[in-house]
Amino acid sequence: MLFLARMDVVFPESMDAATKADFQVREKEYSGNLQQQGIMKGIWRVVGEYANYSIFDVDGHDELHEILSGFPMFAYMNVKVTPLAKHPNATTDDFFGA
Amino acid sequence: MLFLARMDVVFPESMDAATKADFQVREKEYSGNLQQQGIMKGIWRVVGEYANYSIFDVDGHDELHEILSGFPMFAYMNVKVTPLAKHPNATTDDFFGA
Amino acid sequence: MLFLARMDVVFPESMDAATKADFQVREKEYSGNLQQQGIMKGIWRVVGEYANYSIFDVDGHDELHEILSGFPMFAYMNVKVTPLAKHPNATTDDFFGA
Amino acid sequence: MLFLARMDVVFPESMDAATKADFQVREKEYSGNLQQQGIMKGIWRVVGEYANYSIFDVDGHDELHEILSGFPMFAYMNVKVTPLAKHPNATTDDFFGA
Amino acid sequence: MLFLARMDVVFPESMDAATKADFQVREKEYSGNLQQQGIMKGIWRVVGEYANYSIFDVDGHDELHEILSGFPMFAYMNVKVTPLAKHPNATTDDFFGA
Amino acid sequence: MLFLARMDVVFPESMDAATKADFQVREKEYSGNLQQQGIMKGIWRVVGEYANYSIFDVDGHDELHEILSGFPMFAYMNVKVTPLAKHPNATTDDFFGA
Amino acid sequence: MLFLARMDVVFPESMDAATKADFQVREKEYSGNLQQQGIMKGIWRVVGEYANYSIFDVDGHDELHEILSGFPMFAYMNVKVTPLAKHPNATTDDFFGA
Amino acid sequence: MLFLARMDVVFPESMDAATKADFQVREKEYSGNLQQQGIMKGIWRVVGEYANYSIFDVDGHDELHEILSGFPMFAYMNVKVTPLAKHPNATTDDFFGA
Amino acid sequence: MLFLARMDVVFPESMDAATKADFQVREKEYSGNLQQQGIMKGIWRVVGEYANYSIFDVDGHDELHEILSGFPMFAYMNVKVTPLAKHPNATTDDFFGA
Amino acid sequence: MLFLARMDVVFPESMDAATKADFQVREKEYSGNLQQQGIMKGIWRVVGEYANYSIFDVDGHDELHEILSGFPMFAYMNVKVTPLAKHPNATTDDFFGA
Repeated sequence: MLFLARMDVVFPESMDAATKADFQVREKEYSGNLQQQGIMKGIWRVVGEYANYSIFDVDGHDELHEILSGFPMFAYMNVKVTPLAKHPNATTDDFFGA
Repeated sequence: MLFLARMDVVFPESMDAATKADFQVREKEYSGNLQQQGIMKGIWRVVGEYANYSIFDVDGHDELHEILSGFPMFAYMNVKVTPLAKHPNATTDDFFGA
Repeated sequence: MLFLARMDVVFPESMDAATKADFQVREKEYSGNLQQQGIMKGIWRVVGEYANYSIFDVDGHDELHEILSGFPMFAYMNVKVTPLAKHPNATTDDFFGA
Repeated sequence: MLFLARMDVVFPESMDAATKADFQVREKEYSGNLQQQGIMKGIWRVVGEYANYSIFDVDGHDELHEILSGFPMFAYMNVKVTPLAKHPNATTDDFFGA
Repeated sequence: MLFLARMDVVFPESMDAATKADFQVREKEYSGNLQQQGIMKGIWRVVGEYANYSIFDVDGHDELHEILSGFPMFAYMNVKVTPLAKHPNATTDDFFGA
Repeated sequence: MLFLARMDVVFPESMDAATKADFQVREKEYSGNLQQQGIMKGIWRVVGEYANYSIFDVDGHDELHEILSGFPMFAYMNVKVTPLAKHPNATTDDFFGA
Repeated sequence: MLFLARMDVVFPESMDAATKADFQVREKEYSGNLQQQGIMKGIWRVVGEYANYSIFDVDGHDELHEILSGFPMFAYMNVKVTPLAKHPNATTDDFFGA
Repeated sequence: MLFLARMDVVFPESMDAATKADFQVREKEYSGNLQQQGIMKGIWRVVGEYANYSIFDVDGHDELHEILSGFPMFAYMNVKVTPLAKHPNATTDDFFGA
Repeated sequence: MLFLARMDVVFPESMDAATKADFQVREKEYSGNLQQQGIMKGIWRVVGEYANYSIFDVDGHDELHEILSGFPMFAYMNVKVTPLAKHPNATTDDFFGA
Repeated sequence: MLFLARMDVVFPESMDAATKADFQVREKEYSGNLQQQGIMKGIWRVVGEYANYSIFDVDGHDELHEILSGFPMFAYMNVKVTPLAKHPNATTDDFFGA
């Protein structure tokens, strides 16, 4: 079951560069794990913004919320989730390939 | 080069069911061709809405506008396009894989 | 898996009263069936508006979109869907109870 | 008399983790009491957000405002309340069961 | 129990002047009755707009929705309702006097 | 001449409880005086929000601005003012009675 | 007492050019009269839009609403009114001179 | 060449009263000079808000930006500028008199 | 003096294809003339939308409004105009070069 | 391939004047380099705002994001990017000249 998420990151003014860098390292590891597990099907940078669009494949809402709220930078993110269904014009059930 | 598009369809009140059905047949064929050419990397229905999110891989803006404005139902669509770049946390250059 | 939906109905200017009444009869039957099947867990009128909030319990997005787009008045509705997860402060897994 | 509420929590940058945790404990107890009294008929997490939708059954506006402003985290919440009436298509007067 | 309502009227392009005038006569009668019953505590024109703010005193949401949806021009209105509670700085329980 | 005002209060993060309490005492006194003078015809709490709707009867804009900017908490308020005129369906010139 | 008004004109699709021209003639006369009476202190075109900003000097809200709703094209206008007070930095009580 | 400007002032939480007062003194002097030079044709307080509408008569965009960014409080202002043209219904080329 | 304009075109439902095509021919000629005169410094299609961004170099607001309202399709356009000044980081006074 | 960008700068309250000035010097150098390389085709100040519109000519999204996120003040900017295509009414392929 797919969800499109848009995540915007806003760090507080008081956060120093080392803390930001540490967050980014942990975020990258967390995100990489989700991709390896096939949960995060894709992630792309919104050009010009500290934001991403990503697509998640999960079994349910509790699982998705646990995943999203587990992001190391979750407290500094605005997340908007859109549920996606199969489109009648899709030529495949899985655009993310085997 | 990837773009996320959101397309919302609004048919005019006066359009009869046969015309709508004909548009949908042509739309499906057009969309299928784009998928076969590897231009439309994915298309999903927004749950509960006459709308889709889709991802396009094109070489430039003129090509993308030509493709989008070529949709049979383009005159009845509101389209919003977001340019996507590689995300630093992505583990692959191509989520739509071979 | 629960979803909150808000549905706003806008009938076109040209629709006559008999057609509206017919839509409402069919809508009521469709809605009643969803409630009897335990899919629509609740539906409430937004005070002062031709709109409702309703809660759906479904197994996936394709099922939910099929249900929503099957409403007799779907073409005249604006629907916004919000995925709901279990809240940590909830004292029960099922507020709609047995 | 039912109300749908959406509550979004925004903690200030300066609040430390222990204070947040303490707020959450008190919030859980307060929320649990409201559920046991049959005032809070349901509460759900908005997937991906520090927010909930909840449904309240109260006798009047003064009572509802007293309840909402009594939440331990009220000062950090944005609350929007929507009055709900019986929907003509509802098959029951009480979706939250006996 | 008080509610503030804002009602905006939008007549369809095709409605002729006689029909509008007839609606306005019936609206005035309906509105006058609500005032005489003490249900509509006040109604004011928003300067420069075909809109009003009004205050209703009702026993519950079903009653209020019945009243609002009973306005002769309801199909041409956008109505937004805000529940009002007693303000701690109010010097009286009833501003609309005896 | 009547105006509807909506006032939303946002205290800064750094303000301590005693300062807030002091503001609220002064605000109550200021508001009470306006009611006694017949300038503030009514004030109601927006349910679930640190906000009010109030109605002012003043002779002009300078007077109203002086009154509003004189609120002890004015620096922490967002105020939106709507001028109100007599509604053609009103059955009285003065809903706030003698 | 001054008010700033922004008026946006939207003519319905079905209105023919002669009717529009007739409206514009009547509007010009109406507007000219208001200027001669010193009620409309100024009117300017918003560049690129079928809209104006204008400033009115009236004694009260009923008078202003009567004036605005008397515009020949009022039914095709969206009007937003902002009450203006004397600014502490103004070097004159009357910018529109003698 | 006329421009309508709306300026909203938001002082930071940390600014003390003396600094605010000093800004206001300098602002008044700056604004007064602009009026004496015939550049600022008018300035009015938005009732209930720390905001103004003002009208500027300048020869070009560079001049206007220099003037606006020269306001002592510019760093604490949100400014929105609307270019104004002569209205076909205007009875004079200059509403601000001789 | 430069202005950025965004123009969105919305044709009415009833307009037939021949009329649209005729409008587009006239629009192209009009736009070409403005470019040849050095008034329209640039025009670009917003990808995926029936809209453009364009830049105008004019001597004043009356001239600009005359130009914009002279577009053959002006009645079907929403136009938003933004005045542009020289940027301190610009390395040239004229990006559109000789 | 062209993109229109709007960049709004918001410095944090705590940043001192020397730091701001240093940012502006580095920003000017960075921007100048982009112009010399023919990447930034133009940049203009939005009159009255700490914001610019600029046009970029790049080969792809990754390049553009790298450029934008490389601005010294990027962390204090809100950037919105709009992809531009050739307009059918354009009389040239390159408005920025040789």
